[in-house]
Amino acid sequence: MSEDLNQLVARLLDSYAEIGAINHIDGVNLPDTQTVERITWQLLQLLFPGYYEHLSITGGNLESQISATLRDIATQLQREVMKSLDYAPPANFQIEDLEKSAHEFTCKFLAQLPRVREILVTDVEAAYDGDPAATGMDEIILAYPGLEAIAVQRLAHELHKLNIALIPRMMTEWAHSRTGIDIHPGAKIGAHFFIDHGTGVVVGETCEIGDHVKIYHGVTLGARSTSGGQELRGARRHPTIENGVTIYPGATILGGETVIGAGSTIGGNVFLLNSVPPRSLVYYEEGAVLVKDKLAAVSSNEGSDYSI
Amino acid sequence: MSEDLNQLVARLLDSYAEIGAINHIDGVNLPDTQTVERITWQLLQLLFPGYYEHLSITGGNLESQISATLRDIATQLQREVMKSLDYAPPANFQIEDLEKSAHEFTCKFLAQLPRVREILVTDVEAAYDGDPAATGMDEIILAYPGLEAIAVQRLAHELHKLNIALIPRMMTEWAHSRTGIDIHPGAKIGAHFFIDHGTGVVVGETCEIGDHVKIYHGVTLGARSTSGGQELRGARRHPTIENGVTIYPGATILGGETVIGAGSTIGGNVFLLNSVPPRSLVYYEEGAVLVKDKLAAVSSNEGSDYSI
Amino acid sequence: MSEDLNQLVARLLDSYAEIGAINHIDGVNLPDTQTVERITWQLLQLLFPGYYEHLSITGGNLESQISATLRDIATQLQREVMKSLDYAPPANFQIEDLEKSAHEFTCKFLAQLPRVREILVTDVEAAYDGDPAATGMDEIILAYPGLEAIAVQRLAHELHKLNIALIPRMMTEWAHSRTGIDIHPGAKIGAHFFIDHGTGVVVGETCEIGDHVKIYHGVTLGARSTSGGQELRGARRHPTIENGVTIYPGATILGGETVIGAGSTIGGNVFLLNSVPPRSLVYYEEGAVLVKDKLAAVSSNEGSDYSI
Repeated sequence: MSEDLNQLVARLLDSYAEIGAINHIDGVNLPDTQTVERITWQLLQLLFPGYYEHLSITGGNLESQISATLRDIATQLQREVMKSLDYAPPANFQIEDLEKSAHEFTCKFLAQLPRVREILVTDVEAAYDGDPAATGMDEIILAYPGLEAIAVQRLAHELHKLNIALIPRMMTEWAHSRTGIDIHPGAKIGAHFFIDHGTGVVVGETCEIGDHVKIYHGVTLGARSTSGGQELRGARRHPTIENGVTIYPGATILGGETVIGAGSTIGGNVFLLNSVPPRSLVYYEEGAVLVKDKLAAVSSNEGSDYSI
Repeated sequence: MSEDLNQLVARLLDSYAEIGAINHIDGVNLPDTQTVERITWQLLQLLFPGYYEHLSITGGNLESQISATLRDIATQLQREVMKSLDYAPPANFQIEDLEKSAHEFTCKFLAQLPRVREILVTDVEAAYDGDPAATGMDEIILAYPGLEAIAVQRLAHELHKLNIALIPRMMTEWAHSRTGIDIHPGAKIGAHFFIDHGTGVVVGETCEIGDHVKIYHGVTLGARSTSGGQELRGARRHPTIENGVTIYPGATILGGETVIGAGSTIGGNVFLLNSVPPRSLVYYEEGAVLVKDKLAAVSSNEGSDYSI
Repeated sequence: MSEDLNQLVARLLDSYAEIGAINHIDGVNLPDTQTVERITWQLLQLLFPGYYEHLSITGGNLESQISATLRDIATQLQREVMKSLDYAPPANFQIEDLEKSAHEFTCKFLAQLPRVREILVTDVEAAYDGDPAATGMDEIILAYPGLEAIAVQRLAHELHKLNIALIPRMMTEWAHSRTGIDIHPGAKIGAHFFIDHGTGVVVGETCEIGDHVKIYHGVTLGARSTSGGQELRGARRHPTIENGVTIYPGATILGGETVIGAGSTIGGNVFLLNSVPPRSLVYYEEGAVLVKDKLAAVSSNEGSDYSI
């Protein structure tokens, strides 16, 4: 086999030389996926002490454990932030000392942790109030993917606000892979946010969501498609969801000028490209769904599209 | 950095002291996520011997391997069940000796494994009969996420029937994370159940599903939303699906009084809040979908909502 | 406990003897899930050098690293292919020397890697052109699940074309688990393919997709349901999507005779069982969605189905 393989190595090297776009060789170091994922996991441990660790935390060892975890995060994150700054420094930011800047950005980010905790407690409350199947706060923190996804997004959003490249998206994609919930780090999300079940939820980069919003699995808050994608970078492309809105499974709401007024309810599977006023109830009229007797439908050749 | 970090440790400790709801410090030990996941994996090995192990199983080493795996599961599970009983004992259950009770619950659960296997073989048959792409039973066990999800739910359901807290949901959320299929441990599901593809499926806590039911990815069997969630705990909130029903991708069926009659077919993306009689065919009328020529539509300003 | 457990071991052994369909004991060795997953991961490293490794790759160590990775893949893959050939040899293929045949199939497969890279670079370009949120090619390779899913499918498709059993599906199910995107190894997919967000996408075995196609999360390109599944094996059951088609989130397109004409746009949540001509715009008429004032709707008993 070794002859064949030697040839193939040569062909692969040729391919790397010819097609540059998908190689990252001899460039600056990119942030490392596995390290970013481990940092995110450790950050969750700091946000919810006693839930994510294999060992239990007691009042007695709390300070030493928190301190050790925080120091470990800081060291690793600073190294990844340094790679990110080297790869793509924030606009209007003049890097003089890469390590010093990475240190400052890392500290600025970590200083937000207590504030992130304050808002996450409102998310836990919203899940408990909103789901009769929840047996307690502990179950929500231990087993609700929606809480994990929003916790990771709120962390990533803080890095996004500091204009750190790549790392925020790597964090939210880790949560996306684990939960099926895809919230862009750029989305601005209010307090008391509850995502139930969650698989298939998409919340776009320029989305703005108020307080006390509840969305079910399969809900999309997205942009309209475009072939000239890069021209729209930075423009407002995703909807505004005002306070107290509930959106049922599978609803799709698109567009940067679309505003869902406060207190509205959007029915399941609704496809919406326009704004609706506050306290709206939006759903497909019942008449649109046909219920036929199957045997009658088949004999009259209606609905015979469904083989069973 | 150490000065900043020391301050931040202090602020985090303050935050833990102030916001109690999302800390679990000095309380009883909670069941450990990673241990519960490892136990679930080992239970799958017992259900499908020879498929989930890295090493092959032969008739010669079968008994010793099964015995070792079972003993390992029993030891670990008893420890997690003990934590669960300490955290939230089943209603009407007086704990005298925590370890003895944990032992008994663990044995009761494990004794159900042969019966769970009996029903799982009907699920494998249903997948083989229902999917032309299946090349054999082995492929279904090795690579069909729907089978893994229902296997884990049938295990978790046995623990749920024993009123064990937290662990059943942790098991099904592990499967949810791996497969995108979210079936609550409380759901009652008949034989010959087939979930094809599966991503985005949600089956709620009080759902009852008959035999020979087939559902596709994105199907929701859910509850209506409520803000007074906890008042409804335990009430019937999810639909009944009778024998022989097929539900196409993306259909959403909600409500505790909704009954889908035997032998019915529910079309894709249908949103249904009411019961339908046996042998119904439910779908959106063709007329509701408009097919327009794109250039004509754009020039007449219809449908110009879609930029491309 | 040991008495109970001994009894349970005996009952499980009886169960294995009685219910044969879900045991794999003393049969041929099946390909191992974890090994196939590791091989797939290493193949991604060869396709995108410098992105998936923990250590950085430089021009200086490139050849030696690529060579080592390729040799490792070849050794492991040949062993898994040997198990697959023993389990189910390709039709019309006479195995004389299992190891020699496994070697040949493995080499044929690996020889396709440079060609797979050529087409993947068009997929990266399509993602960059199609998504205003993409900050660069690197972000797409590091963090876009759609790219990972199509990369794994293009690899699995090469093994599928060689009629290797089980392994291709195990590869795509690994990607499905990580990304929520379920593309069958048999699907034929053109260049410049972009899946945005991706969770819940299903692309069936006999699907044919042209160039420059863009699909969003929750899109199904599927078959109609059938209870006589195995009779349809190999028949064309999934749609044809011509060049330049965009399909919005949640759309479901079913059937082997369904052709979506070139340049068409399919709206979100559309359920389509019929062909549409080129340049079609397909969507639900606006009238089908009702927007009501919530208080008025509740007082008139319309729409009171939604409790909030």
